[in-house]
Order: sequence, then structure tokens, then C-alpha cells
Amino acid sequence: MSGPHISRTIADLRTELKGWRQQGLSVAMVPTMGALHEGHLSLMREALSRADRCIVSIFVNPTQFAPTEDLDKYPRQLEHDIERLREVGVHLAFTPSPDEVYPKGFATKIIVGGPSAGLETDFRPHFFEGVATVVTKLFQQATPDCAVFGEKDYQQLCVVRQMCRDLDIPVEIVGAPTVRDEHGLAMSSRNAYLDEAQLAIARRLNVILRGASAAISGGADPAAETASASLALLDAGFKTIDYVAARECGSLGPWRPETEGRLLAAAWLGSTRLIDNVEIAARS
Amino acid sequence: MSGPHISRTIADLRTELKGWRQQGLSVAMVPTMGALHEGHLSLMREALSRADRCIVSIFVNPTQFAPTEDLDKYPRQLEHDIERLREVGVHLAFTPSPDEVYPKGFATKIIVGGPSAGLETDFRPHFFEGVATVVTKLFQQATPDCAVFGEKDYQQLCVVRQMCRDLDIPVEIVGAPTVRDEHGLAMSSRNAYLDEAQLAIARRLNVILRGASAAISGGADPAAETASASLALLDAGFKTIDYVAARECGSLGPWRPETEGRLLAAAWLGSTRLIDNVEIAARS
Repeated sequence: MSGPHISRTIADLRTELKGWRQQGLSVAMVPTMGALHEGHLSLMREALSRADRCIVSIFVNPTQFAPTEDLDKYPRQLEHDIERLREVGVHLAFTPSPDEVYPKGFATKIIVGGPSAGLETDFRPHFFEGVATVVTKLFQQATPDCAVFGEKDYQQLCVVRQMCRDLDIPVEIVGAPTVRDEHGLAMSSRNAYLDEAQLAIARRLNVILRGASAAISGGADPAAETASASLALLDAGFKTIDYVAARECGSLGPWRPETEGRLLAAAWLGSTRLIDNVEIAARS
Repeated sequence: MSGPHISRTIADLRTELKGWRQQGLSVAMVPTMGALHEGHLSLMREALSRADRCIVSIFVNPTQFAPTEDLDKYPRQLEHDIERLREVGVHLAFTPSPDEVYPKGFATKIIVGGPSAGLETDFRPHFFEGVATVVTKLFQQATPDCAVFGEKDYQQLCVVRQMCRDLDIPVEIVGAPTVRDEHGLAMSSRNAYLDEAQLAIARRLNVILRGASAAISGGADPAAETASASLALLDAGFKTIDYVAARECGSLGPWRPETEGRLLAAAWLGSTRLIDNVEIAARS
């Protein structure tokens, strides 16, 4: 099976798209930063099930990294990534350079309120500005009918949904479940930074969150349970806990017992920051 | 001749558009706030010359008015406006309500740097945020191939161009020349606020700007000429001068003698704020 068409420029991407549109084909997109793992591949399979053609963008977006963060060491492995796209049957890989995405004189940003408040924003204040701006650009470049985002980055999924609704961007946003290893650890490109001892600790994250979520659904006080979960994470070997928080689905406002919620966490293992989240069932 | 189709909702607009696109028709758009005059009609004629179908939006956008500004008294005359669209041959009037454009929970804004710095922004700090956000929404709603904006609002034209370039919005931005009355006064919906005595003063604005522009092109010092023009405007009867400034075309950075420039001004006549601008020819 032949590999995906590779577009390095917006102009080339648009030429390919035009051909597809003239044939009346629908298009789904999966925006990624590369370093593809099984979680990404599940998003691509979802995209392929929803449209005639699937575009995967591979772009490590500098504007969503703070100067202190891991932009330089973020894993880049384009050849390997393209091979994975070929295996899954993706039609087009969009792999622009930073200069193609942010040419000289670039000066626009998109600020999304609502679900961007708190959580990641408390620790990465410009993160969602960077995400919102690049996702808008990707949608204008590729004009897909739908785009698939992982629930692993749950707050990001909510922010992208809010943005598309607010700006009337005609792209359906599809959320896809987090893919986990056999121990429940959420797949993440940043797992590659972990050694064996850290991996064993990392695998405690989802276990502790699932326990707290079940307790909260069962009637336990959310503030007490999230505090206990933080202490349990520290006890397991996490170095710092950025947050463990119970929120309402979608809006990410405070969780209310009668609604479905989400328990979200971010914690540091050495110099690696991991995030995860699990459902909170509404109290019956 | 039958009048334009009137869409009050985004859904209805998209239904009409879908029919056009299925016929392979191209679409041009003219965003307006209504209170249509000959200046707007010239933009529509330009749009009609460039595409098979022309959409005119009529929406007094609340987010580009400051609380102290004239949102409430801004002239609204929808029936009269629709009649003008019919005369010119516009195909669709998009007339959404504020709630249709900004539903409950709306929380996103677009901030454009570059040409938005200074001039209008010094006096209307959130104006271009409001313009950029609503224009992006209109473009996502109507997905036109091109859109026509008047050079009368020259800084706005530059900001919209910068935004579309930065966000890769696939809409060609066309600038159209300012339409003036027989005395050179730029057509503006806000001219309706002026009484006869004020109109006579208002007509001095373009005369004074053209004089200063010619002097600057001819070798006079731009700072001295803009200061003299401000004094001349006060002398003519303007109450306050917000700015008279010589800028480079497009970027709106400082004017350089070897490039084409623009002389821009904003000034108050009673409680009415007027703007205008004229070309500065590059020095030969």
C-alpha cells in the first residue's frame, strides 16, 4: 500500500483538497504534533470511519510551549510517523515548517474564554491561545468537514469545541476516548521521557483518579476526594501536583452532583509533566 | 426585479449557500452595519463584478462599540436598506439578530497586532478586536470567495487583510475607493448626525488632508504637516482632533518617503466623530 501524500506547504495542501472536493469527497482531520502512538492512531481510525479522506497534520506548534517548556526536546520522528500513517491508511500528511505556519510579520491570536479558565491555564497561561490559534489556522488551511481530538487532552477538546461554536467554524469536533496501556496509563508522547521506575509511578495516576471518581459519584465530598487523590499521587512518587479537580463536562465549571463530570489531573514525575482525566458519573 | 433573499439565521444562510455551491457559483460578500449609502453601494457593485452571487450582511455589531459610543443611536433602517440591495441586484441579505451572532456563553475574541497599533486603537482600544472577531465569524458563516471593504475605513481594511493572512482564512480581501460627495466629503452613515453648519465644516476635512498629503509628497516634513493640518481642522471648526498621521500603506508603520503612504485622520464635530484618509504619493 502506498503511503500518504505529503504536503509541506499550504498551497500544496489546497491543491490536493481541491481535487478531492471536485470529486465530492468528505474530509476528516486529525491535528497532531507527531511522535505518533496508539492513541493518535485511534483518532485516525475514527477520522477514517467518518469521511472519505483523512488528513493528519504533524506540526510541533511553538506558540503553545512556554520558554521554559520542552519545545526543543519534544520528540520528532517524521519518517517513523509517516510509516504509521501508511499502516493506518491516512491519505495526506500535512507537515509544514514553522515559517510556513508563522511567516514574518505574523501578529494574530485567538483567545477563548469559558472552559479555558483554570486547570492547564493556571500553569500554562498562554497554552490555549497557542492551541486555539493554530487549530483555527489548520481548519482554514484544510477546511475539513470534521476533526478528531483525544479526550486525553480533555480541556483542549472543550476549548476547541467552544472556539468552533463561537467563531462558527464549520468543522464538527469529535472527541475520541483515551487509549491506555494494559496498566491503564494514558498514551502520551511524553511517556517517552520516563524511565522504568517512573513508568511504574505514572501507572498509578489513572488508578488513583478512578478511585477518587468512584468515591465522588458514590457521595464523597469532591474537595476532600481531590485532596486525598493529590496526597496519594505524592505518596506514589509524583514530585508536584499541579491540580486534581472535579469539573462539569463541557463547560468545565464546578461539578454538580446531578450532572456528568470529569476528574482532571496534572502532575510532575521528575521533569516530565503528565495529564490524565476520567469520567465522573452523575449521582443517581 | 425581485429583492434579495433575506436570511435571519446562520442555518438559513448556509442552506442558500449550499444551493449556490452545488451549482458551482462563486460568492462575494460585503459586510456592513446597514444605514446604506452610495459608498456601500459601490462596494456591492465591486462585489457583483467579481462573483456570481453577492451577499451583504447588515449587522450593527455591539462588540465594536465602547459603552460610551453611539451603538444605540447608530442609524437602523432595514427596510430602506433592503430596497437599496434590490436596486443594486444583491442576491442575499444576511440580517442576524445580536443573539444569533453572540449566543449565551459566547467567549472568544481575536486580537490582531501589526496595523491595528495606534490611530483608531489609541481612541477605541477594543474596536479592532470587535471587528476582527465579527468579520471572522461572518467569513465562517458565509464562506465567500472574496469580500469587499471600503478604503474609507483604511486601518480596518489593513487589519482585516492582516488577520486573513495570519489565520489563513481563504477569502480574498478587496479594497474599494472611498466614495465622496461633490465637495469631497467621504460618505459615512455618521454624516446623518450632522446639521447643515456641521456639514460645511466636515467638507473641509478632505480638503485639508489632500493639501497636507501633497505637501508631504513634495518634500515637506510629515510631522510639521500633520501638526499644521490638525490646527487647520480646529480652525475650520472641528472640536477635537484624535489624530492626523502619515503612515506606510498596508503595515501602517511610519511613512518612509520612498514608499506609498496614507494620511489618516479622525476628528470630532460636536458629538460626531468623522474619519477620512487620502493617499500620499511616494517622493520621486
